[in-house]
Amino acid sequence: MPYRAPLADFRFLFDHVVGLAQVTATDMFAEATPETVEAILTEAAKLSENVLSPLQRNGDKHPARLENGVVRTSPGFADGYRAIADGGWIGMAAPAEHGGMGLPMAVTTAVNDMMASACLALQLNPLMTQGQIEALDHHASDALKALYIPRLISGEWCGTMNLTEPQAGSDVGALRTRAEDLGDGTYAVTGQKIYISWADNDFSANVCHLVLARLPDGAAGTKGISLFMVPKFLPDADGNPGRRNSLNVVSLEHKLGLHGSPTAVMQYDGAVGWLVGEPHRGMAAMFTMMNNARLGVGVQGIGVAEGAYQHALAYAMERRQGATPGGNGTIIDHADVRRMLGVMKAEVFSARAIALACAVAIDMARATGSAEWQARAALLTPIAKAYGTEMGIEVASMGVQVHGGMGFIEETGAAQYLRDVRVTAIYEGTNGIQAMDLVGRKMMDGGEAAFRLMEEVQAQAESARGRFPNMATAVWNAAESLREATEWLVAQDMNDRFAGAVPYLRAFARVLGAHMHLTAALADEGRAKLARIAIKRLLPEHAALLVQLREGAAGLYDLTAEDLAA
Amino acid sequence: MPYRAPLADFRFLFDHVVGLAQVTATDMFAEATPETVEAILTEAAKLSENVLSPLQRNGDKHPARLENGVVRTSPGFADGYRAIADGGWIGMAAPAEHGGMGLPMAVTTAVNDMMASACLALQLNPLMTQGQIEALDHHASDALKALYIPRLISGEWCGTMNLTEPQAGSDVGALRTRAEDLGDGTYAVTGQKIYISWADNDFSANVCHLVLARLPDGAAGTKGISLFMVPKFLPDADGNPGRRNSLNVVSLEHKLGLHGSPTAVMQYDGAVGWLVGEPHRGMAAMFTMMNNARLGVGVQGIGVAEGAYQHALAYAMERRQGATPGGNGTIIDHADVRRMLGVMKAEVFSARAIALACAVAIDMARATGSAEWQARAALLTPIAKAYGTEMGIEVASMGVQVHGGMGFIEETGAAQYLRDVRVTAIYEGTNGIQAMDLVGRKMMDGGEAAFRLMEEVQAQAESARGRFPNMATAVWNAAESLREATEWLVAQDMNDRFAGAVPYLRAFARVLGAHMHLTAALADEGRAKLARIAIKRLLPEHAALLVQLREGAAGLYDLTAEDLAA
Repeated sequence: MPYRAPLADFRFLFDHVVGLAQVTATDMFAEATPETVEAILTEAAKLSENVLSPLQRNGDKHPARLENGVVRTSPGFADGYRAIADGGWIGMAAPAEHGGMGLPMAVTTAVNDMMASACLALQLNPLMTQGQIEALDHHASDALKALYIPRLISGEWCGTMNLTEPQAGSDVGALRTRAEDLGDGTYAVTGQKIYISWADNDFSANVCHLVLARLPDGAAGTKGISLFMVPKFLPDADGNPGRRNSLNVVSLEHKLGLHGSPTAVMQYDGAVGWLVGEPHRGMAAMFTMMNNARLGVGVQGIGVAEGAYQHALAYAMERRQGATPGGNGTIIDHADVRRMLGVMKAEVFSARAIALACAVAIDMARATGSAEWQARAALLTPIAKAYGTEMGIEVASMGVQVHGGMGFIEETGAAQYLRDVRVTAIYEGTNGIQAMDLVGRKMMDGGEAAFRLMEEVQAQAESARGRFPNMATAVWNAAESLREATEWLVAQDMNDRFAGAVPYLRAFARVLGAHMHLTAALADEGRAKLARIAIKRLLPEHAALLVQLREGAAGLYDLTAEDLAA
Repeated sequence: MPYRAPLADFRFLFDHVVGLAQVTATDMFAEATPETVEAILTEAAKLSENVLSPLQRNGDKHPARLENGVVRTSPGFADGYRAIADGGWIGMAAPAEHGGMGLPMAVTTAVNDMMASACLALQLNPLMTQGQIEALDHHASDALKALYIPRLISGEWCGTMNLTEPQAGSDVGALRTRAEDLGDGTYAVTGQKIYISWADNDFSANVCHLVLARLPDGAAGTKGISLFMVPKFLPDADGNPGRRNSLNVVSLEHKLGLHGSPTAVMQYDGAVGWLVGEPHRGMAAMFTMMNNARLGVGVQGIGVAEGAYQHALAYAMERRQGATPGGNGTIIDHADVRRMLGVMKAEVFSARAIALACAVAIDMARATGSAEWQARAALLTPIAKAYGTEMGIEVASMGVQVHGGMGFIEETGAAQYLRDVRVTAIYEGTNGIQAMDLVGRKMMDGGEAAFRLMEEVQAQAESARGRFPNMATAVWNAAESLREATEWLVAQDMNDRFAGAVPYLRAFARVLGAHMHLTAALADEGRAKLARIAIKRLLPEHAALLVQLREGAAGLYDLTAEDLAA
């Protein structure tokens, strides 16, 4: 089952739902003309369909492996990587001054979506590098920028991020890796990092690790952390890879999925590094990288869901089983299969629209400096990440179910989507962390950004009342109950917020998804059919989720550890 | 993390929720005294904890494999199987006249639950044999019964069921395997069967295949299907395995999980078989086997959920990460982790209570011949199967999430639960098929059995109003809306029912689960804490599900195959 890039959906979403035109109307993104965007989408579709999609199963069947300290990647991955690099896709969003395309994040997001559908394990590599470019661009010295960014953009070198340590996962501040000033502008970095995606490969000339570590005078917790660039090979005077640095891949993890992406334990033994940004301000720099990576990971969930959906649809249109109401005999005519496929498609559309709206907000914030757009981007990022990935898991699981017995057989390919996508709800901040970010940090404005968004949703619903009275009323009412729930939320203690964070985030996504579908239906009557699935079948869940939110934490702590273990 | 059998829960459910006493008060089950049941549970717990649980990872790491036509099982499985057989656990529910224990299905269900938690892949083997014993006991000739049942009960021989063919999955009636009368009381069976669980092993002296096939004069569809006993080795005059039959394991599947259980493609080439039951009445006989197997598979989901829950709880009580409200520093004190664990435990309790209530209904129907109990068992079976397995998948996935990054690493063991349990929503009739059974065949009484159950739920809620006014009102109201939805349902065309079948079944399970928790809280105040999780956080979902139900099929078919592929 070959992947086909959903170009019509991207075009429609850009033109009629998320408003790419406002982005390209800014000076910063003026070069992203409709013709340019069209060419980008078309080329990215070709790359994804023809080059990357055939590699998907290779990564699973022939995992990356460690041989005598050297990572050997899956068959074809080196060629796939080269195609991504040569197409300029790594530096899509990077500034033109360093050789990037300077495209809006919205366009980058669509391209990442396609590449993730086609081959998630390989796509994770440039996604990491994109985040590193962004972090360097914002925080590194000019010398570091000049040395690293062009080589990262060209794909000659790859980038990684090194945060986690065995005792420091969600609590990054607990990290123990230390850095000492060597007095010559470099630092000696020592410590162990775990879960390092694409920590090494056999196709790039260098691997550039951004490593969080603590200087001797760094305070405990996140405020004493600094960020360092620690390359595998120390660049020589000409910027070519020179002496091998004192860092090693200790081992690769044996994972549930994403076998094509090597996940390493890294050991740094006085490895030479360069400070990125201010001392003790490493978390701020890392957040730059993480915020984009969070959107990027949400888009991974969406991409996998698209792949799983197409896979299941193709099977359902071919598999004959039992008498069907439509009489054509393929299982797509069975009501329950059609329900699953309709839900899958509606979910993908919802999540994709939210992710692209988040990307547009990022672009607008950058291009205009507007605090409102900045707040919008900040609000949507955890939703795009958590809902995109949770939805990705659910849709991949439904894809398995559509296949029946075949779904459990690995050769079918349906199960790989489920195994691969499962990690997206965990890495770059678990979905629980995303939800806590939403109800905590992102509500420090008293809910203002959320209320503003709800007003837009309700205004849009008002405008739809004439044409789609039932759907418009459903969306307006759901937004109203979300607004009321948000008012309640911001008045609670933090731990009561945290207890309801995950249900609240999902309820938020349900309302936004319904809003996106309603917007789509207003623009194109033909899209009302899918909108009805989203609004009549999926949206009602928000009410139950908000009931959960309002339960707060109390009942949870009544249940003691002893009760749980009884 | 060693498995600990939840004996206190089984005892409590038997005594205070599902009413095992009414079963043991019948003549048929009079021997299952409280002391006997206690001894059974204690012994089964020891077997599961000490013998089976250590095999769980072996099956995954060292899958069953096919070597020169012979299946080699995972390390330790032969010993584990022998322990199951020697303990008499295969014939728990089988009639004493053939050497079984004649225990109630309720007790068998608790034991299967424990064995499934401990090692699902191995537990599937006796589960298949149990079903075969039941089918033979009800439908086979006395000669076949005398020959096979004692050897199946002793574990000397194993049993399998052969339904599926490449073109005949959910639509069993499409099967092509044929049988010819050889005129000497035997038949020649020819055809290919797929997805045959435990089709062969290296620890039983014989493997007895129950095979669905069509006689030359068999009509098309399910009405022309007959059932045959086709053993791997033809029994000689003394009942010992003799000549090798003309059947072969062609290949084993490479599956998402359950690697310790060999899943085979079987080829029958004029293999000698014996007719079980009447010609052309094979489906009726097979349904005997399938109904019990459906409950058994639901219990597999529950068992895995229990294992995944215990695994996650142990991790959460040990893992330190970040400052916690309770101040003990382990992640169990984080509100979102506690929410997940509370939900997991509440879900397991709900599903287990429903499965045991189903088993009690089966026992009462057998012991009393009551049509009402029969209808209750028929109604609860698809719910126990589909909800038990769907819940099993959700809880296993939450277990992965509680582990954070560790959850994606196979060595942790959390991912195996998710991979293993995924098939339970597919085999023995997909959960979609279960839901169609519920809204179709099980509503041929006009909803009478469902209404009777709702009345019991409401009566129980009435009696709880004094002590738990909020919870009682919530359960009563939910039962009322389920009753109304059921009235609506039975007035619809079949395809409209099918479109809403899966949401309806889940809504039904939500109401029943809440009812079971309320019953538990009435019996033991200490259980009210968990009941609050189930009733306040999980039950409200039923309303959204019933909205989906009432959408019917129309909107789904507006969305054409072309729309879905757009």
